[in-house]
Formats: sequence, structure tokens, C-alpha cells
Amino acid sequence: MIKGSRMRKLLIAAICATVATPVLADSHEGVLKARQGYMQLVWQNFGPLTKMAKGEMDYDADQAALHADNLDALASMNISAQFPEGTDKESLPGETRALPVIWTDMGGFSEKFQNFADAVQNLRAEASEGLEALQAAVGQTGNSCGGCHDDYRAKEF
Amino acid sequence: MIKGSRMRKLLIAAICATVATPVLADSHEGVLKARQGYMQLVWQNFGPLTKMAKGEMDYDADQAALHADNLDALASMNISAQFPEGTDKESLPGETRALPVIWTDMGGFSEKFQNFADAVQNLRAEASEGLEALQAAVGQTGNSCGGCHDDYRAKEF
Repeated sequence: MIKGSRMRKLLIAAICATVATPVLADSHEGVLKARQGYMQLVWQNFGPLTKMAKGEMDYDADQAALHADNLDALASMNISAQFPEGTDKESLPGETRALPVIWTDMGGFSEKFQNFADAVQNLRAEASEGLEALQAAVGQTGNSCGGCHDDYRAKEF
Repeated sequence: MIKGSRMRKLLIAAICATVATPVLADSHEGVLKARQGYMQLVWQNFGPLTKMAKGEMDYDADQAALHADNLDALASMNISAQFPEGTDKESLPGETRALPVIWTDMGGFSEKFQNFADAVQNLRAEASEGLEALQAAVGQTGNSCGGCHDDYRAKEF
């Protein structure tokens, strides 16, 4: 039988062997890549829903549900690790549109994110309930995006 | 009372006003940004768990649970939109490590992704159950990452 401490060492060795640390892990480049990737993932799923809502793409209940489920997964995340101190537009000019006010008004920022999460939960419920239900829920979700971007995101990098 | 068709036009106008389409939406740059962002988000959450498992960071049950919940949200997503045809390493040299075999063996690729999702679900259950439980679950999750990367991701861009 392997003793506890030896088992522990073996476990840690196994973890070290299987989990290689990417270069970007703790850098601000890594933070921005994750944060901007998150936004891109939101758009990758919200985009087709807006196209269906606008009539630029045929309404498909299954596809709508798939994208709404993905959005709900993203909106359910705790995004605090995406916004460490020192990753605002003034600290990193040209690299991010995140305004410094995010960090001085984290309560307001969190409330806006919660509005988005709530709108997406409704979107998930409505997405496969027909085009008109989708349109209303997409409009509401779009407003929740804008409600945060207006105050906390600059127009330019 | 506003008639149905007029209401519909107003709704679509409201959607157009609130939902501005990002430039990258349908481009391969947008796909890669979303895909690589997804991987970065996975790492942003798996990284602290591996550090706790290796003893490089103090074990904290609440933080471990937060990161495991985020990982589970990511692993619950349907990632098919992240892998459209024509976004492999041969089509986009220097931009991605995604090997063409992903698209000729989508069944095997999906199975590996499911292994990851299963490992993360276990990680979520174990993360706040103490350091040894976390270590075992982190090791298993790391193996599931490697199990896919070995076959479907090139070592270099």
C-alpha cells in the first residue's frame, strides 16, 4: 500500500505532467484575451439570434435554443477574474475599451451584468417559442448589452 | 392599438437600434478570437485550481468552487459554432493549431470534448471537498485536456 504522503507526491507529479501552463496565464494579455474572447463568444451566439429576429436568417427553434443555452452558460459565469485591477483603458491604452469607472463603481457594473444575465434567462425560455417571442427577448437582451456598454465601455480602443 | 405588422416593424427597428453588429462577427478572425478566447477562459479558471492542487496557492474551497462552476458553464456549451469548416491549421497557417483531423473525425473529437465535460462535472462536485479531492479531480481534468490536444491540436501554430 502506498503511504499518504507518497500518494500525494505522485498525485502532484501527475498533475504537473498533464497540466502545462500556457504562457499567457497570468499576464494582462491573457486577461484581455479571455475578456475579449468572452465578448466574442457572446456575439457568436447572440449574432444568429439577432439575425433571426431581424428576418436576415430563417427562424429555427432548435438553433435558437442552442444559441440561447450557450448564452445562458456564459451569463451564468462569475466574471470577476476577467476584470483584475490595472486592466482598464487608461492603464492599457489601445488594448481595451474597459473604462476605469468599472473599478470605482463595481456595484453598478455588477448590477448591469445581472440585468444581462436576467435578460438571457428570459431569452432562453422564449427562444424556441416562435419568432415573435424571440424578437421580444432579443430586443430586451440587446438593451441589457447596451445598458452596460453605454456607461462602462469606451467607443474606441 | 398597434396592428401586428406595425408592432413587428417597430420591434425589428428596436432590435436594429440596440444590437450593433461587431465587425468580426462572421469572419474567420471572429471565429478564432472566440475559439482561442474560450480556451483562455478555460485556463483562467483551471489555472488557479491547478495551482491549488500543486500547492503553489493556498487551497480555498469557495474560490475552488467558483472556478469549477465557471469551468462547468464553459464545458456545458455546444462548441460547434467555434469549429466551422475552413478554420483549420492548413487553411489558416500561423493562426491556429486546430488540426484538419477535427473535421474528418468529428465523432472522435466530440467524444474527447465529452470526456472533458464529464471530468469537469466531477471537478465541480469535488472542488470544495478538500485538497485531496481537488487534486484527484484536477488530475483527471488535466488528462481530459491532454487527451484531446494530443490528437487534435498541433504543437506549434
